[in-house]
Amino acid sequence: MTQILRVQNFFVSADGFGAGEGQSLEQPFGHATNADLPADLASWAFATASWPGRTDSSGSRGLDDYFVRDFARNIGAEIMGRNKFGPQRGPWEDLDWKGWWGDSPPFHTPVFVLTHHHRSSFTLADTTFHFLDASPAEALQRATEAADGKDVRLGGGVATVRQFLEADLVDTMHVAVAPVEIGRGERLWNSPEDLLDRFHLETVPSPSGVTHLLFWRR
Amino acid sequence: MTQILRVQNFFVSADGFGAGEGQSLEQPFGHATNADLPADLASWAFATASWPGRTDSSGSRGLDDYFVRDFARNIGAEIMGRNKFGPQRGPWEDLDWKGWWGDSPPFHTPVFVLTHHHRSSFTLADTTFHFLDASPAEALQRATEAADGKDVRLGGGVATVRQFLEADLVDTMHVAVAPVEIGRGERLWNSPEDLLDRFHLETVPSPSGVTHLLFWRR
Repeated sequence: MTQILRVQNFFVSADGFGAGEGQSLEQPFGHATNADLPADLASWAFATASWPGRTDSSGSRGLDDYFVRDFARNIGAEIMGRNKFGPQRGPWEDLDWKGWWGDSPPFHTPVFVLTHHHRSSFTLADTTFHFLDASPAEALQRATEAADGKDVRLGGGVATVRQFLEADLVDTMHVAVAPVEIGRGERLWNSPEDLLDRFHLETVPSPSGVTHLLFWRR
Repeated sequence: MTQILRVQNFFVSADGFGAGEGQSLEQPFGHATNADLPADLASWAFATASWPGRTDSSGSRGLDDYFVRDFARNIGAEIMGRNKFGPQRGPWEDLDWKGWWGDSPPFHTPVFVLTHHHRSSFTLADTTFHFLDASPAEALQRATEAADGKDVRLGGGVATVRQFLEADLVDTMHVAVAPVEIGRGERLWNSPEDLLDRFHLETVPSPSGVTHLLFWRR
């Protein structure tokens, strides 16, 4: 099978705002300093049996669980924007900062962080972070080679997803729209219909209240 | 995580009939001799990008594709009824019959076939078939050991699924209800509501017309 670029479990509000810089499936509370970004965006995922942080055997095994457990399936590398990796801007001054995820990041693959500032690669457990000053197309080429035949996940945040969409590099995209309005923040879109010229779209309401939007290339 | 017993991608008609003996995700036309079992039961799966028989890069990547590609995720063994394995009944006389699936069966794990008649194990590619004269609980114990920490899939057919449900051994079950009536055959249930005393149920209509029923233990 062809290797593809996938956006997975990307959280947005009903009014189209992303969960903010640095927020993703793995670190939904990345912006702990910003109390305006509600946990409600991600609560559907926390409730599932397959949520990575779960330590007991409870949790739902319905529709939402399929999306959570598909997160890592056949993924060989991730690309993320610098703002997902951490709060620093400009040159890398604090090299002790190694991401939001502690000693065991949940990626388990190479991760390519887009940045204009040089930083050396490092490894935490089975995740290696590389830092690239590259265009989306160049970054995708590097990640695809590193993925060893598997797919590449585009991890976000909003600006990074938009950049790759504009470069027409995204093959599939799963966006989970929570029934909550944020009113401000980084906007993924005005409407999902903006993408219908290039993508198929299925809209799947979940019993949990979230709506899963599934895009794939026409 | 605890190892669980999962029914995955089990096809039934709108009136509750299974796809007949021997039919499953892997061999939906098992009963080629029975023209009364329509392909319509499985057409939603054939249309997806992840359908195992697909040789091109087309196919839908919407909701139905999640169910198809979850089929093998974290599965370490399968249990199936004899009627799924093949058309023979009684003592094994034709040892050249090695299942419906040719030289490369789509299981890629140990498979335990329930039968009252002795037969020796054999291996085709990366699938080994074992033949067990055992109760559901005994078979599950054997398969769980063989699954090496992963889950066990219960592959069908209808009689086997019913037997394991009656023994209360099934943890999760995904049944795909096609918008077609068969009128006769082996019946999985009179109504999915028969199971609500023991299972949560989410009902997820797909844009393709099939309805996915997702059960998990209360």
